[in-house]
Amino acid sequence: MPSESDGPGEEPLAEELRARFKGESFSLGILLQTQGFFSFRDNDFIGGRSWDLGSTRIDFRGTVDRNFTYRVRVYYLSQQQSIDARVGYWFNADTEIVAGAFKPFLSRELDPSPGRTDFVRRARFVGAMMNSLEVGTSLLGKTGPLNYRFGIYNGTGVQGMRGNTDNRFLYTGRVFGSVPVNGHSLIMGLSAALNQSPDARVGNSGLTSKGDRYFYGGYLDYRADTFFVSTEWVQTFFDAVEYGNNRETITGFHATAGFRVGPRHELLARYDYLDFRLIPDARDRFLAGLNYYPSSLITFRLNAIVEPDRRAGTQTGVAAVFQYMF
Amino acid sequence: MPSESDGPGEEPLAEELRARFKGESFSLGILLQTQGFFSFRDNDFIGGRSWDLGSTRIDFRGTVDRNFTYRVRVYYLSQQQSIDARVGYWFNADTEIVAGAFKPFLSRELDPSPGRTDFVRRARFVGAMMNSLEVGTSLLGKTGPLNYRFGIYNGTGVQGMRGNTDNRFLYTGRVFGSVPVNGHSLIMGLSAALNQSPDARVGNSGLTSKGDRYFYGGYLDYRADTFFVSTEWVQTFFDAVEYGNNRETITGFHATAGFRVGPRHELLARYDYLDFRLIPDARDRFLAGLNYYPSSLITFRLNAIVEPDRRAGTQTGVAAVFQYMF
Amino acid sequence: MPSESDGPGEEPLAEELRARFKGESFSLGILLQTQGFFSFRDNDFIGGRSWDLGSTRIDFRGTVDRNFTYRVRVYYLSQQQSIDARVGYWFNADTEIVAGAFKPFLSRELDPSPGRTDFVRRARFVGAMMNSLEVGTSLLGKTGPLNYRFGIYNGTGVQGMRGNTDNRFLYTGRVFGSVPVNGHSLIMGLSAALNQSPDARVGNSGLTSKGDRYFYGGYLDYRADTFFVSTEWVQTFFDAVEYGNNRETITGFHATAGFRVGPRHELLARYDYLDFRLIPDARDRFLAGLNYYPSSLITFRLNAIVEPDRRAGTQTGVAAVFQYMF
Repeated sequence: MPSESDGPGEEPLAEELRARFKGESFSLGILLQTQGFFSFRDNDFIGGRSWDLGSTRIDFRGTVDRNFTYRVRVYYLSQQQSIDARVGYWFNADTEIVAGAFKPFLSRELDPSPGRTDFVRRARFVGAMMNSLEVGTSLLGKTGPLNYRFGIYNGTGVQGMRGNTDNRFLYTGRVFGSVPVNGHSLIMGLSAALNQSPDARVGNSGLTSKGDRYFYGGYLDYRADTFFVSTEWVQTFFDAVEYGNNRETITGFHATAGFRVGPRHELLARYDYLDFRLIPDARDRFLAGLNYYPSSLITFRLNAIVEPDRRAGTQTGVAAVFQYMF
Repeated sequence: MPSESDGPGEEPLAEELRARFKGESFSLGILLQTQGFFSFRDNDFIGGRSWDLGSTRIDFRGTVDRNFTYRVRVYYLSQQQSIDARVGYWFNADTEIVAGAFKPFLSRELDPSPGRTDFVRRARFVGAMMNSLEVGTSLLGKTGPLNYRFGIYNGTGVQGMRGNTDNRFLYTGRVFGSVPVNGHSLIMGLSAALNQSPDARVGNSGLTSKGDRYFYGGYLDYRADTFFVSTEWVQTFFDAVEYGNNRETITGFHATAGFRVGPRHELLARYDYLDFRLIPDARDRFLAGLNYYPSSLITFRLNAIVEPDRRAGTQTGVAAVFQYMF
Repeated sequence: MPSESDGPGEEPLAEELRARFKGESFSLGILLQTQGFFSFRDNDFIGGRSWDLGSTRIDFRGTVDRNFTYRVRVYYLSQQQSIDARVGYWFNADTEIVAGAFKPFLSRELDPSPGRTDFVRRARFVGAMMNSLEVGTSLLGKTGPLNYRFGIYNGTGVQGMRGNTDNRFLYTGRVFGSVPVNGHSLIMGLSAALNQSPDARVGNSGLTSKGDRYFYGGYLDYRADTFFVSTEWVQTFFDAVEYGNNRETITGFHATAGFRVGPRHELLARYDYLDFRLIPDARDRFLAGLNYYPSSLITFRLNAIVEPDRRAGTQTGVAAVFQYMF
């Protein structure tokens, strides 16, 4: 969140870019992230000691005549790429249907753009349980005080897009709303999903779901003037092919707090929990973060990460991202 | 074909987009397709039951000073991509030479943009016999009443572009012209090609051509005010590596009719024939289509597909595409 | 170098494109190359007899408020791609830090854009010794008469970006300056690098460096009104995994001269030397080149290449590129 105290004329180039390239029928977006990782031990904790490109993408989108929308977003990952492309239609001011490849609205932690996450990386449960892109269709809307998202997807991510002939789907649902607390909004939401795709990869966990996979969770989010707190709990269970089709249950959780400490700086703290029933591994991770916004287009994030582990000893590392986002 | 009855001002956003991004020296194009397939039996006929991205692409092109032209068109296919890039020169108003990677002008059914095909997918013979992109050079021109296209390509598609050191080429030729019939044009054309590339893949047929591969065909196309009819017949033969270098002959044909049934709707019917001499398989496929153009930028296509098969029983399915094309 | 005699108004379309798309905060670039190769013998010398796409890329870049810079450049290689993405910051008018994926400033022969090289391909030592893109960070600056570039990179190129957990880096340094000679500048530079990444590929040489790899070299460049001369010598040594961890030393050199022979034409000559201590191969290659610039956006290069070889006999070939660059 770049400083809102910047008056007009303080960023003439950014204003010129927005005037030229951010419109209703056509909007160009560019996100460039460069990252650095440093594990204090000479191992591969949080990526070892290395440089990386983060989420680097270009997108084109707009709303055109008769309430149709389009968006194509190309993610460049060194020699690979991933594509988020969707076409949509607004039935009315409250209800849109979208089809294509996009984020499946499973978890609030997955919602924000990679350029607007609180930390350098999302909470670990996102990667462990979800594909960041799914191919399918989704209904987005609002009824009274409740917002909803219902989707039907192939359930195999964009990786499994070609040759996806299992004829089974991932069904997702989410409802959320907000209540006023001290003049600000407390957002509350619930998610659930059923993935019937057989032999589907479970995020980046390295596990494969034999048959039906169930997912559910909930979150709270409260943002005041100078601080915010947010938390989310999610769980998924399925029969893991790698463990003789035994029932695996993955549980994830984060609790995060952030404080604005000046017009251009934020301090953050997070507890990140991830547990596999069948795989013994470190569950807890603690993060401290500093976000610096030198301009409305540039962000610098610095994270310190600590992972206590009784077996392997406590691991520590530092991660940073330097980002241009338009 | 979006309704021509739309007067100026009926699509203000589309007009704004065209004014900004469609010019002589620079033109931006975006095509987004999202598809759905449903086989009535739980099998993989026409893709089983699944969502997909269709042809999703972004292109930049123009004509610059001294009669040079450029075009780069990037196709995004989930985690892959394909590129159509060409540079050209107009010797005179009738004759252009182009070089790069592009469609090889082999068949009329391959000609239209994937955003302007009659059905969700092209007739099957296109995929079975041709690479949709070839790397090479082509002469495009007109002499008297005849148009021509002559090309020399690597003959291995863009897939075989790297490491293409067979030193043999694909030679293509096509001539076409038109005669007036009842105040409209009847277009007639002939194509022929010889691919000398050894051990080259034959489209997506799964077959490999040992040595020379021959291709030839012809087409007719007649478009009146409220209907059109078109047909094309093509054949290719070669020694198939997978069948002990025996001679394989693939024959393809389609006959298509379309009717405009309102300012924004078309109904279509097609017979699609594809026969392999050595591979026993269903030859006939019947398609019915409804195309709906809610605006000049949005298209919705719905196809019903029937494939009679004495051995496996008749298969039926439905395919749809929802598209933004600028 | 397109003719400078072109006055305003001689290329109205190019001027219109520049006015629209080349600005400080946003600049669009497009490079399209189509190539042809012909080996006089029916073998794979310089690519045999084939067509190819050369370097085809699209880039977006700019300088934004508070001295930050961004650049994303996507290279399309038929079905693959490579990405050059960087974010930078100018500490002052002389000093910039950049981070991301980009050319590692190792050799002057690698410096120019692929649309501005003297010949169809760079001198062979570039490919044999260097990755064209490295992921890391670099300091670019000037102190007194000396320019410098210091960088720390992963050392495994963008190919090895994912899963780069060796925790070792490539360190690079370069200094250069110029002295006036006859009213023109003679540029002189020195480079050195140490790559500590274990088991790293050595360019496209097919060799793997067991441990530390050392690199050093120097160059001279002199450009007068109607001609230029330039030369560069580089060497690298390392323990080659493929040769029982024996010490391999690769030495490269080129000497090049160019003459402007008219407002739109250049003639060039080059001697290209590449020697592997452990691999017996032809060392010498001679090139003659003709560059033709029909407009400021279009380039045509034609090269004749001769490789004397006592064992295999002298090889000859022709290479050409037809290019649009904006």
